[in-house]
Amino acid sequence: MDLRKKIRIVENFPIEGISFKDVTPILKDPKAMKHTTKEIAKYLEDKNVDVVVGPEARGFLFGVPVAHELDIGFVPVRKPGKLPYKTFSVDYALEYGSDSLEIHSDGIEKGQNVAIVDDLLATGGTVLGVSKLVEKLGGHVSALNFVIELTELKGRDKLKGYDIQSLVKYDL
Amino acid sequence: MDLRKKIRIVENFPIEGISFKDVTPILKDPKAMKHTTKEIAKYLEDKNVDVVVGPEARGFLFGVPVAHELDIGFVPVRKPGKLPYKTFSVDYALEYGSDSLEIHSDGIEKGQNVAIVDDLLATGGTVLGVSKLVEKLGGHVSALNFVIELTELKGRDKLKGYDIQSLVKYDL
Repeated sequence: MDLRKKIRIVENFPIEGISFKDVTPILKDPKAMKHTTKEIAKYLEDKNVDVVVGPEARGFLFGVPVAHELDIGFVPVRKPGKLPYKTFSVDYALEYGSDSLEIHSDGIEKGQNVAIVDDLLATGGTVLGVSKLVEKLGGHVSALNFVIELTELKGRDKLKGYDIQSLVKYDL
Repeated sequence: MDLRKKIRIVENFPIEGISFKDVTPILKDPKAMKHTTKEIAKYLEDKNVDVVVGPEARGFLFGVPVAHELDIGFVPVRKPGKLPYKTFSVDYALEYGSDSLEIHSDGIEKGQNVAIVDDLLATGGTVLGVSKLVEKLGGHVSALNFVIELTELKGRDKLKGYDIQSLVKYDL
């Protein structure tokens, strides 16, 4: 399946000059969604992954079905003040500003292998923050899995040393 | 499975006096997650549902796997300014204030049967807003499905005429 055909380009969103990659057509098509889920799960199958972590909100959309496919748990990473139990937090830079992220302190056990799933690799700021949270809890980041990669933003440079998968690449 | 054992009660979150029901232990346990998904899918199996709709962010966590189980699409409902394409929006009252919600205008086709999935039925404000969005697009709301219902907040009174499922009920 050519997943690229299921990604809608919306010009000038969220700001002038940005060519936004809209994944909602993937979500609406169960065949495209299953293809996406299976491609990520296949990449992870030999990595002995214990848990999938995904940042809100679009990381939930792809991380949850990947965890389901691998028959393992999913742990959400959220914006500050959203997770009710004890949390660890980290500040991170993102494509259009900066923000903080939190994870439940009991979300990952020491030594667990973790796959981090998100819809988009842009500058890599968000996923670097998520990786730090996982490592703070003693987890090992086995892979970073994205549906889309914007190669010109050079997220891979920021994420050196991590094992990265992306299903569809765009220059910008 | 007694799903109640997988819901963590966190006192005084997000504000003093609230006994918050934390669903993250369900997400972390693949058996509990599959049980939850299958219970909702079973409730929907004779309703000829065409699409699952879920509001961000916790509605994504349960709506996506339910859509996967039913082999149908998922359409996200989001806070204002998050969806990139043409949207319809609605204002709604929620447990701790008020807000707006948006759906892509091509998310639902006229005459489609829609299941709305969210983690929690509290006062019913959010899901009533989501129902209005679905109906604005010409969709028929076949059922409202929740993991948890806080019965004392009388969300069902606000949602009269809708078919409602909840898996775990609490007084407050």
